[in-house]
Amino acid sequence: MQVYLDNAATTPLDPEVISEMTGFMKDFYGNPSSTHSKGRQARVELEKARKKIGLLIGAKEKEIIFTSGGTEANNAVLTSLALNKKVKRIISSPIEHHSILDSLTWIEAKTDTEICFLNVDSNGRLDIDQLEDLLTQDIPTIVTLMHANNEIGNLLDLDLIGNLCEKHHALFHSDMVQTMGHYPIILQDLPIDFATASAHKIHGPKGVGFLYVNSKSAKLHAFMHGGAQERGMRGGTENNIGIAGMAKAFEVALGTQEKDQKYILLLKKRMKNGLAHNIPGLLFNGDSENLETSLFNLLNIRIPHVKDETLLLRLDMEGIMLSEGSACSSGASKGSHVLTALNKGDNLSTNLRISFSKLNTVEEIDYAIELISKTVNS
Amino acid sequence: MQVYLDNAATTPLDPEVISEMTGFMKDFYGNPSSTHSKGRQARVELEKARKKIGLLIGAKEKEIIFTSGGTEANNAVLTSLALNKKVKRIISSPIEHHSILDSLTWIEAKTDTEICFLNVDSNGRLDIDQLEDLLTQDIPTIVTLMHANNEIGNLLDLDLIGNLCEKHHALFHSDMVQTMGHYPIILQDLPIDFATASAHKIHGPKGVGFLYVNSKSAKLHAFMHGGAQERGMRGGTENNIGIAGMAKAFEVALGTQEKDQKYILLLKKRMKNGLAHNIPGLLFNGDSENLETSLFNLLNIRIPHVKDETLLLRLDMEGIMLSEGSACSSGASKGSHVLTALNKGDNLSTNLRISFSKLNTVEEIDYAIELISKTVNS
Repeated sequence: MQVYLDNAATTPLDPEVISEMTGFMKDFYGNPSSTHSKGRQARVELEKARKKIGLLIGAKEKEIIFTSGGTEANNAVLTSLALNKKVKRIISSPIEHHSILDSLTWIEAKTDTEICFLNVDSNGRLDIDQLEDLLTQDIPTIVTLMHANNEIGNLLDLDLIGNLCEKHHALFHSDMVQTMGHYPIILQDLPIDFATASAHKIHGPKGVGFLYVNSKSAKLHAFMHGGAQERGMRGGTENNIGIAGMAKAFEVALGTQEKDQKYILLLKKRMKNGLAHNIPGLLFNGDSENLETSLFNLLNIRIPHVKDETLLLRLDMEGIMLSEGSACSSGASKGSHVLTALNKGDNLSTNLRISFSKLNTVEEIDYAIELISKTVNS
Repeated sequence: MQVYLDNAATTPLDPEVISEMTGFMKDFYGNPSSTHSKGRQARVELEKARKKIGLLIGAKEKEIIFTSGGTEANNAVLTSLALNKKVKRIISSPIEHHSILDSLTWIEAKTDTEICFLNVDSNGRLDIDQLEDLLTQDIPTIVTLMHANNEIGNLLDLDLIGNLCEKHHALFHSDMVQTMGHYPIILQDLPIDFATASAHKIHGPKGVGFLYVNSKSAKLHAFMHGGAQERGMRGGTENNIGIAGMAKAFEVALGTQEKDQKYILLLKKRMKNGLAHNIPGLLFNGDSENLETSLFNLLNIRIPHVKDETLLLRLDMEGIMLSEGSACSSGASKGSHVLTALNKGDNLSTNLRISFSKLNTVEEIDYAIELISKTVNS
């Protein structure tokens, strides 16, 4: 049996998405910037996808800028603001995704933007008092904090952070790659200026995503220079096959969101209880044990006093696919920067990220519980 | 009858490409950065695509950096070199694609890089003496000139320019979006440091391309910050469906390249002779009349003393799809910057770009000749 439990890294494509993209490839080959009928047809399809996504997440069409994925959107918003001197400071946290952290390193080297990191406790919770203290200083600032941590699953209170930012006239960006499409998010009701989304965490294609730019609060300079595509902010012929797939993925995901969430939460609880029963002293990283303040589709377990470098490989050989942290740092010798920030990156324990999707079955979970327990205890 | 003659803007997908991408979507959903078997399988497929493309164009695998298309590749090479102070001057021409020109405008505003434009004559030929004069100045320089102009079809002598650059220790980048896959190009035999390619001009998907970085001559800094993807230069989960489609498109295109070129050249000659016969005083822009120094799949005609704003629309209503210039400037009120640079952007003539592909038939060409002639003369 093959059990894919690395859905926070990426998800299998939904059959409806494959069908949408296949049909699209046959029917709509025009360049959306061409003015003849094939071009206009492609333009109509592109804007239909934008409208569909906008309706599903409570955003205006003009607030959605299609990108080549979450990484580009994260790079774009921060580097564009810093290079155009729209902010003088960026406040973030040490447990953000590498596309944020590496952008910040670059911005610090290339511009005079100040970079501040919030303190984080051993459960991955941010120091909100520190944030408020920083925001009282009169410096043009953007705060960038992810909605859900991709390794430990901690959820951020977007209203709390957004309102704080609004109160202190700071911009607020959130990397929502792990939550957009998974939760019933209405962007226009959130105190947020920018948000990042991608398709491949919700059974859509890789290499496509978008940046949400709140039309009420924020202006952004062009971040890819070329044609007038994406309202002049992101030149280049659009990945319209991928965009059509992403729109379908959002439609499918949000159409069954409530049902899927309930089902996946059952799988998570079953896994949590099963492993806790079988593995003595089992711990959970971050808030992933708490079902309210953590992603419903992710569990990050910690097996103390067991350091087994071959565990993932042995599980993989039995068909169980999971990871130690994010895919982007898989295979890297440094290990997870998130667990390091939580002081959980020691050499005396084994950490495993188990992430679920609607495609997992109860049988798979039971098989995985058995195999993980057996392998850990062996 | 619908006749698509705007293949320089984009091309219909090859059925083999559609089939490849559809199969890929079903089979390979892993994240290429994940270390488990699904991830490794996706990594193998990604590297197979890179190897295939490399073998077809004479590049090492490590010299190919996948991007979201030609625009990203053009932006990346120039902004990365300028922002990291690897060059102090960029020499280009006024008839480059907007993804070059707009990047240069941005670089000029944001850095102290000097931007020089070569003079261009009324046929779109560059002033090579001026280039040599500029290169004798001892300033760290990159020359960026497109291999074939996307509007008028003029071909650049890559050996001539590359050898000049090499002699004067300047870097050389060429936007080869209109030629890579269309011509039997062996990059390792060319005196070139960087080259840009995309998939959608050769019957592949939109939103995917690559930057060639010659391993012998050039180092590039990261241009998208995040994971270790693309040798650390371009973070972000790879658009592996698009990349698989691009590899197949290159395989198909170069597999039948010679045959397709002969066939398309026949269509171009037929169109050229037919229109010249029917339209009194017909002229050709750039070198597009010359079959040796111009793209084999593009004709740019000029109808003097006729200014007809509705011509394209009327042709479109009859099923004939072509354009006035590049798709990226379609609908823009400013008209073609290329023809303006050639002093052909007046209000007294009508210019039409007619671009062919292997999918066009002789019947389509004859129908288009008849319709274009009738519409122009009416």
